[in-house]
Amino acid sequence: MHVNAYAASSATSPLELTTIERRPVGPADVLIDIAYAGICHSDIHTIRGEWGEVPYPLTVGHEIVGTVAEVGADVTKYSVGDRVGVGCMVNSCRECENCRAGEEQYCLNGNIGTYGAVDRDGTVTQGGYSQKIVVDQDFVLRVPESIPYEKAAPLLCAGITTYSPLNHWNAGPGKKVAVVGLGGLGHMAVKIAHAMGAEVTVLSQTLSKKDDGLAMGADHYYATKDDETFTTLKNHFDLIVNTVSAPLELKKYLGLLTLNGTMVNVGAPPEPLPIQVFTLFTNRRSFAGSSIGGIRETQEMLDFCAEKGIAPEVEVISAEQINEAYERVLNSDVRYRFVIDAATFA
Amino acid sequence: MHVNAYAASSATSPLELTTIERRPVGPADVLIDIAYAGICHSDIHTIRGEWGEVPYPLTVGHEIVGTVAEVGADVTKYSVGDRVGVGCMVNSCRECENCRAGEEQYCLNGNIGTYGAVDRDGTVTQGGYSQKIVVDQDFVLRVPESIPYEKAAPLLCAGITTYSPLNHWNAGPGKKVAVVGLGGLGHMAVKIAHAMGAEVTVLSQTLSKKDDGLAMGADHYYATKDDETFTTLKNHFDLIVNTVSAPLELKKYLGLLTLNGTMVNVGAPPEPLPIQVFTLFTNRRSFAGSSIGGIRETQEMLDFCAEKGIAPEVEVISAEQINEAYERVLNSDVRYRFVIDAATFA
Repeated sequence: MHVNAYAASSATSPLELTTIERRPVGPADVLIDIAYAGICHSDIHTIRGEWGEVPYPLTVGHEIVGTVAEVGADVTKYSVGDRVGVGCMVNSCRECENCRAGEEQYCLNGNIGTYGAVDRDGTVTQGGYSQKIVVDQDFVLRVPESIPYEKAAPLLCAGITTYSPLNHWNAGPGKKVAVVGLGGLGHMAVKIAHAMGAEVTVLSQTLSKKDDGLAMGADHYYATKDDETFTTLKNHFDLIVNTVSAPLELKKYLGLLTLNGTMVNVGAPPEPLPIQVFTLFTNRRSFAGSSIGGIRETQEMLDFCAEKGIAPEVEVISAEQINEAYERVLNSDVRYRFVIDAATFA
Repeated sequence: MHVNAYAASSATSPLELTTIERRPVGPADVLIDIAYAGICHSDIHTIRGEWGEVPYPLTVGHEIVGTVAEVGADVTKYSVGDRVGVGCMVNSCRECENCRAGEEQYCLNGNIGTYGAVDRDGTVTQGGYSQKIVVDQDFVLRVPESIPYEKAAPLLCAGITTYSPLNHWNAGPGKKVAVVGLGGLGHMAVKIAHAMGAEVTVLSQTLSKKDDGLAMGADHYYATKDDETFTTLKNHFDLIVNTVSAPLELKKYLGLLTLNGTMVNVGAPPEPLPIQVFTLFTNRRSFAGSSIGGIRETQEMLDFCAEKGIAPEVEVISAEQINEAYERVLNSDVRYRFVIDAATFA
């Protein structure tokens, strides 16, 4: 099956309309008519080869929502017409300790990314900037009725990537949580942490998005360009969720953690950062990483967002605006997530 | 009150016999006739000015045991003749959040170290390489009858420094714990983790101490000079306790952690280490620090060691052997802790 999609033919090419092949619907597969696909900063890093070599031509996109159009003979979880989503992975080994624990994102044999990965059938996966996608039912999520499609899309990456560490490190009543960076991930971290009952502080370079942050549920908002922030908030947070991929001066941020506090990174630069272990001795601090979330937890996140009535702030664009949108993402000129209307791939 | 002690008069001087002053026994104070004092690597770092400037002349030693010789009018916890110990701190603010939580080692106003610190009365604290010491009862520990004095001494630093992270990160049945380095701290980490019921692996540069390690309770023993160790044990440990102060190649060690695993440092170089955050994304790993332990937890550790019948391996020396012992510690030529017989200060 050939479907329309946007792809890049090299690390330096713009994305252009093309067609890609989707596999026939297998017994356990679900065919999805894509409604919207979010634009994640990872899409840009990947397609430009900044995170390592990738196979071209490549279609990216791992924040996918749409409607089930067809199901394989053995599919039990979904029916034609269901509102569904696909996130950052479309398969895993399902046999390792981590898969068995429902943490497929940490598959010891490597989960299969939604794009640019070699699937277990040997084909290269192609992402969501397209009209349709075929995915094994076990890697498909149910999108609650109350979340509009275009707002559901970013939950599949930005939502789960922030929900998972907030959930794992017990953000909730009585906990002081800082969110570093108010972009696509950061703004979801603020909404989710607030909905979980935590006291939320945004740490952003400047105060330019302060009104937005407070409206999203932040209790406090500080500029990291102001050194006084790091004095005022010393030994303060139980949890810092760092959504910024640019290198940070770790010592300053770790100094903000209170007793048994953790700074968890969901974004990070590929190059090593200097860390002073003595900073971790104070307050028994931890420095951690977290990567998306498992399928079970992703469904839990979607249901949580529906129950709490929270959703991302999105700007819907058409396919021909993708390249321009990339430039705006790189300039931090997006409030707070671009979502492509998949009807415009036609 | 003047008492005999060993002190250094500069960062480059040997330690020599001198006298130091102890404050009069205040209402809440306990006067201790010191029986033994352990030699900790920190003593050497500190007295040689390697961890920052210190006031000279300085007497070090923070693994102190002895007998109560006198108590102040308000002392309720101890009586003359009691077997007691003093560890790495002799005071704290007692008012901050961490002190109130019984974690005085993380006092937000800075705990008062047993030596080289300015006590709350304005005097500089002097350590345990001496005949007697005066300490507030709240920072004195009870040494169980079943632990001989000379073996109890190293528990006050090496014991609690390893017990606390093992306890905090839930070492116990079903948990795989690695101990990096089999020195003063490492050998206690092995004994304690084994007594807690964990499966214990020693990661040492070579296999030269393998028989000792297994005799102490290790289940497995690997050489870190052998690169295959890092392949064999990949994604393996729930907890790694790093007792080595020299810089390690973090990426290799972090790669040994399984899902939700933590590498906790109790030793560390003062200079920053490069850390690749992507290594933390795999398996949701954490990199943490831990500093000694609180008074309540130190007492718990002493009672635990007595109950489990575990104690350090010590080599008792006389005061005039201190400088030679320092050289041997620096050459890793100690199995596994030097303890000074305080009778030889006379």
